Amino acid sequence: MSIYKKALTLHKQNRGKLEIKSKVKLTSHRNLSWAYTPGVAQVSREIYKNKKTAYDYTIKANTVAVVSDGSAILGIKETGALPALPVMEGKCAIFKEFADIDAFPICLDTHDTEEIIKATKLIAPAFGGINLEDIAAPQCFEIEARLRKELDIPVFHDDQHGTAIVVLAGLLNALKVVKKDLRKIKIVISGAGASGTATAKFLLYAGVKDLILTDSRGIIYSGRKQGMNPSKRDLAKKTNHNKIKGGLDAALKCADVFIGLSRPKVLKPHWIKLMDPDPIVFALANPEPEIMPLSAEKAGAHVVATGRSDLHNQLNNALAFPGLFRGALDARLKNISDKVQLKAAHALASLVPHPHSHRIVPDVFDKRIVPAIAKAISSS
Amino acid sequence: MSIYKKALTLHKQNRGKLEIKSKVKLTSHRNLSWAYTPGVAQVSREIYKNKKTAYDYTIKANTVAVVSDGSAILGIKETGALPALPVMEGKCAIFKEFADIDAFPICLDTHDTEEIIKATKLIAPAFGGINLEDIAAPQCFEIEARLRKELDIPVFHDDQHGTAIVVLAGLLNALKVVKKDLRKIKIVISGAGASGTATAKFLLYAGVKDLILTDSRGIIYSGRKQGMNPSKRDLAKKTNHNKIKGGLDAALKCADVFIGLSRPKVLKPHWIKLMDPDPIVFALANPEPEIMPLSAEKAGAHVVATGRSDLHNQLNNALAFPGLFRGALDARLKNISDKVQLKAAHALASLVPHPHSHRIVPDVFDKRIVPAIAKAISSS
Repeated sequence: MSIYKKALTLHKQNRGKLEIKSKVKLTSHRNLSWAYTPGVAQVSREIYKNKKTAYDYTIKANTVAVVSDGSAILGIKETGALPALPVMEGKCAIFKEFADIDAFPICLDTHDTEEIIKATKLIAPAFGGINLEDIAAPQCFEIEARLRKELDIPVFHDDQHGTAIVVLAGLLNALKVVKKDLRKIKIVISGAGASGTATAKFLLYAGVKDLILTDSRGIIYSGRKQGMNPSKRDLAKKTNHNKIKGGLDAALKCADVFIGLSRPKVLKPHWIKLMDPDPIVFALANPEPEIMPLSAEKAGAHVVATGRSDLHNQLNNALAFPGLFRGALDARLKNISDKVQLKAAHALASLVPHPHSHRIVPDVFDKRIVPAIAKAISSS
Repeated sequence: MSIYKKALTLHKQNRGKLEIKSKVKLTSHRNLSWAYTPGVAQVSREIYKNKKTAYDYTIKANTVAVVSDGSAILGIKETGALPALPVMEGKCAIFKEFADIDAFPICLDTHDTEEIIKATKLIAPAFGGINLEDIAAPQCFEIEARLRKELDIPVFHDDQHGTAIVVLAGLLNALKVVKKDLRKIKIVISGAGASGTATAKFLLYAGVKDLILTDSRGIIYSGRKQGMNPSKRDLAKKTNHNKIKGGLDAALKCADVFIGLSRPKVLKPHWIKLMDPDPIVFALANPEPEIMPLSAEKAGAHVVATGRSDLHNQLNNALAFPGLFRGALDARLKNISDKVQLKAAHALASLVPHPHSHRIVPDVFDKRIVPAIAKAISSS
């Protein structure tokens, strides 16, 4: 049976992927009088007196909202809340299985920036953190920025920062393999959506000096007129210092690293030959990458990674977000700063002390990942 | 240890009462490819093509939102979202334990009617039903009415209709005990908040002819100036046909039934002597009733009920809402109409075929309740 058929069967048999269970017994009048009325009134009174005690007495301390408006889910644009639901359920299932975090899907029936912000703020009290998911760029930037400012719990757009963290972790180890220095390499990122933008900013924060972004209209440069937005204009100022223009092929000349966060098949094999020796190719479009690993390797790529679980070097967000939220909840961080994210990337990379071309990150099922990242964060 | 101390300990030890589990295995790359990327994309596509398939492929069909703004939770007014959380968690735990329904608390950080309506509509897609809870009157009336009109899933304010159903079920059997006819009795309801209002309307719908409501200012009558609102004006037209004025004692003269949905101790024992022979007293204020059963019985009450689990004849909403939502979800009702609610009340009452003064409703843990109510509903 194909993966798609099997997926449909699995979802139908189980009627979705999540269930909500009681952690307390409710089998007698005494149980009920402690968990519900009249006993629960005392719990409410304690929380009313001191809001912080909600972290002790309720699910808040270990519960994350996975919030999406379904504007940028896997391969379908602006599909809306209902088609987003199975994806968000999957995310919540991963939260539980990987990091013992209780996560619940909040699928919003709107694509309006202000409504998304408002609804997320209104439902926030029950949660210890907010994971924004599959919200389209550029709206996602304002939504995240505003929520970070206006809420007192961590807000993390995983498509942006989860990707950025995993890419940096993979890159740190890929550079070990090819013996190059992060501060001296040239990187080209294909894609200036949520993940491309966040990855670019995070790589600059981590010390990368020479970075070019491309989108469907080619290289992004200061002064470009077509297809720009405030976020791209901001990136244009911080990248492409030589103001190179042209297509992806022009950008790739003498580049050390290609990072694809864009669309299937945009990287032609012969363009890899334009890159500097021992090129690193991260083709992360999902489910079909910018180039298949075999083609990339044949064309001379030294280290290749994709987002796929059926190929080597899977750079999957699930390597980062479970440990990141585990650590943020445990340390009760108010936000997940760049510094915290950098620690997470280094912690993840350190789990493969002797990387080689087919192993730059640990397997997503490696049980060491969540505690390693959580520990790195809580010591920050 | 007191109930209150035990409640605090229980909540602290468990850090709240709910957890969210995955129903599918996520222990291998194959599992992940079915439950998450890339397989889940196909599930999203199917739902995008036909929204109704969300009932097959996601949690929607068995999931209920327990929505509250914390404006009227147990004994504390306008406390807000966080103190409401333990109460809503308790409700969700009961949903699961009693009816195998997955329910999640949506505690809203606002008391604004329009914001509550908007937020509930925005989060609705993931849910198969909405249980409104502990939202103050009179706002709760508009919130429920609007959501019923604007959403295509059942919306049910339990404080209103859950109470009304359980009261009617108890009353039907109490009347059997004292051998009186619903259509010929005089009922006095103390309290014109959410539950008092809904109970009054539902009793009229069920066939009661003579009904008087009182609130903290005394009897409600057409033309009263003080402490009225649109909902009370509407009730004044439908009740108290003889336009009696005065206090609760004036209302109770020759009454057959007292239903307290108000405050502790408002019913003086000697007022019971003003009532007709074999008076029925439902003192449902929580946790402290309008009169204690022993006092009521000493004063001549023939059948006495409270909301407390430590006393006989517990008229608790948990007798109704689990079965009601079980039936509504299973039959995929678009709303839970008066007719459906009447069937639920009769189904509940029928589980005690030979009632006596200390047993007018089944015990809340009686396993027959949920299937009986669900069956009655789905055959409607």
